[in-house]
Amino acid sequence: MNWKNRFADRARLMQQSTVREFLKHAARPEIISLAGGLPDPELLPVEETRSAVDKALSNYGPQMLQYGLTEGIPELREFIADRFRKIGATAENVLITTGSQQALDLIGRVLINDGARIAVQNPTYLAALSAWRAYGAKFIPGGESSLTEANGMADPDLIYCIPSFNNPTGQSLDASERSTVLTYALRTGTPLLEDDPYGDLRYDQSPKPPSFLEVAGNLNTPIVHVGTISKVVAPGFRVGWVVAGRELIAKLTIAKQSLDLHTSTFTQFAVFELLTTGFVDVALPRLRAAYAAKRDTLLSALEVNMPASITWSRPAGGFFLLLRLPPDVLGSDIASRAREAGVLVVPGAEFHVRNGENTLRLCFSSVSSSRIPAGITRLRRAVSDSCS
Amino acid sequence: MNWKNRFADRARLMQQSTVREFLKHAARPEIISLAGGLPDPELLPVEETRSAVDKALSNYGPQMLQYGLTEGIPELREFIADRFRKIGATAENVLITTGSQQALDLIGRVLINDGARIAVQNPTYLAALSAWRAYGAKFIPGGESSLTEANGMADPDLIYCIPSFNNPTGQSLDASERSTVLTYALRTGTPLLEDDPYGDLRYDQSPKPPSFLEVAGNLNTPIVHVGTISKVVAPGFRVGWVVAGRELIAKLTIAKQSLDLHTSTFTQFAVFELLTTGFVDVALPRLRAAYAAKRDTLLSALEVNMPASITWSRPAGGFFLLLRLPPDVLGSDIASRAREAGVLVVPGAEFHVRNGENTLRLCFSSVSSSRIPAGITRLRRAVSDSCS
Repeated sequence: MNWKNRFADRARLMQQSTVREFLKHAARPEIISLAGGLPDPELLPVEETRSAVDKALSNYGPQMLQYGLTEGIPELREFIADRFRKIGATAENVLITTGSQQALDLIGRVLINDGARIAVQNPTYLAALSAWRAYGAKFIPGGESSLTEANGMADPDLIYCIPSFNNPTGQSLDASERSTVLTYALRTGTPLLEDDPYGDLRYDQSPKPPSFLEVAGNLNTPIVHVGTISKVVAPGFRVGWVVAGRELIAKLTIAKQSLDLHTSTFTQFAVFELLTTGFVDVALPRLRAAYAAKRDTLLSALEVNMPASITWSRPAGGFFLLLRLPPDVLGSDIASRAREAGVLVVPGAEFHVRNGENTLRLCFSSVSSSRIPAGITRLRRAVSDSCS
Repeated sequence: MNWKNRFADRARLMQQSTVREFLKHAARPEIISLAGGLPDPELLPVEETRSAVDKALSNYGPQMLQYGLTEGIPELREFIADRFRKIGATAENVLITTGSQQALDLIGRVLINDGARIAVQNPTYLAALSAWRAYGAKFIPGGESSLTEANGMADPDLIYCIPSFNNPTGQSLDASERSTVLTYALRTGTPLLEDDPYGDLRYDQSPKPPSFLEVAGNLNTPIVHVGTISKVVAPGFRVGWVVAGRELIAKLTIAKQSLDLHTSTFTQFAVFELLTTGFVDVALPRLRAAYAAKRDTLLSALEVNMPASITWSRPAGGFFLLLRLPPDVLGSDIASRAREAGVLVVPGAEFHVRNGENTLRLCFSSVSSSRIPAGITRLRRAVSDSCS
């Protein structure tokens, strides 16, 4: 049976990411992985989850195991809405999704026609690009953090923005850039999708800026906020959410019903139990301290080991930084050599919709601090022939 | 912000099911619900899950909370593959999905072009129809259980079949019908999707027939098997699977990556722990006895209460039966009157791709046995004006 002759036309748009090829090697113990964007396994809340599940099973019993509403369990929807209560959000403005990846797919499904033009940071989150390519989207590249008019954006159908600690650069929009994007979206009525997985993982003393949705001040706007517990609680639950106007939430809900009926009620109640008992407030200082230390170790090791022709971003939060090789050096070549030398890094090209072939993404969140210097020594060997 | 002007063309194909409107009333305590196809909440394994999660957290720790492979955790993939080991299945032939609903959507995404023709039982599972309509599918109706040449099927692009205890009729294909469908698929190379959520919930002594995939005898065929733990363990976990040739599994995996990265590792490990310790073998006799008793109560109540002009299917398994009203009576009218009389039933029209406006789906699985007679008495009041 040759399935290829049977695949739908859109299946041609679904291609295996080369990044995934690199990640396959991450499990080998001799390999030091700066590849996959995973939370530190030692910071995942195993014991807190054990007691949260135990308590939730006592409180909610069979509800945790039963079918639920497509929109999500009311308890969790209300908890998320409460974060936006100043702008009048209620549970009706919240859709619980199977991780924020599903939110990105759903938004593509409901808003993106074949040939639709999406303004994105360049680079930006790889899996958003792949999800929307499957719906026939085209991308208008902005700068590493900036977006909108400054980048010649001409009437896009959607603006996608990771305002804080972008994946893969770790860079954020500054106040002026935030204002430019938001003003443009509100003035033109262009849907602005704010994806904020890393906003709470900030490693300096500056306060967290309000979300686009909060600054817009009401839900009758084209602003769509997407969040997740994957980076501050645990990705294994696959719980994320969309906050937006009721009309859009209703349409996304209908679309979601065909995708998976609803997100696991079991993980929703477990996450609700963790969130409602204040887990995040306790965990965040610990996460921030641990990830900040890893970032510092990585930055120091790069400073010591990298030749002058290589530069990199200095993130104030998140999981990643982007390494820029000399213009004529391919990130994919260096990533292959690095893998042979025993360190995994990810070529940056696929995060870009223009240029970026000479970049590498380095993730400092999941590797143990003690292995970072050895990893960067190996990376030095990988770049030594082509970079000076 | 008027989102309607922004919705993609395909969003017009996504319509709210009227069934969902009826389900909204199911939570009211004065209502007797024969509507939603839910497992009996009293049969959901709360304590077994408590100890399975506890044990799994001890065995697998942070792995349960971490990102995982899109294909699913190897432990669960191997467990499912082992059910098909006689035909040479390995973990590479298994994709774990976020409930079997996601499997249906993924198959649509990967195999269904706009205008593709899908041969279906008529009636068949509503949410498969909605998922594939969003990809532009057309449907070729068969009979209540029969399919293929006998129904004038002309070279369909896909055959969709619930061979055992179809939703909404509870009817099964007999041995000859099974053979006809399978032979047609193998001879013509037409993909045959076998959806088997209810196959283990059989209430007579007849043995479970082998799956299409097992009869086909190897994985290099167009047979695609879809399964789920939703009916025999718990739907709240959202764990299902596809078993098929490696080429199709690989493409479905790429498609799934954009949908939700992977199914919750937490629920996958919990389910693996339940399955591997033999939960299903212990639970099945209890489930069969309980559901068989409810079915019998429902059939008796119908026998006593329904006028001669109304007929119904007599399912040997599953959760449902289909009630057929006189040809000129609308199921949606009766369902509305029934709701006013305090019993929820679901109009059967949306499960049909032709005719069926005079049908109602009755679910006996989630209602408590003691309320079934009163529910059917209320239904009698709802039909009394229009059926004799």
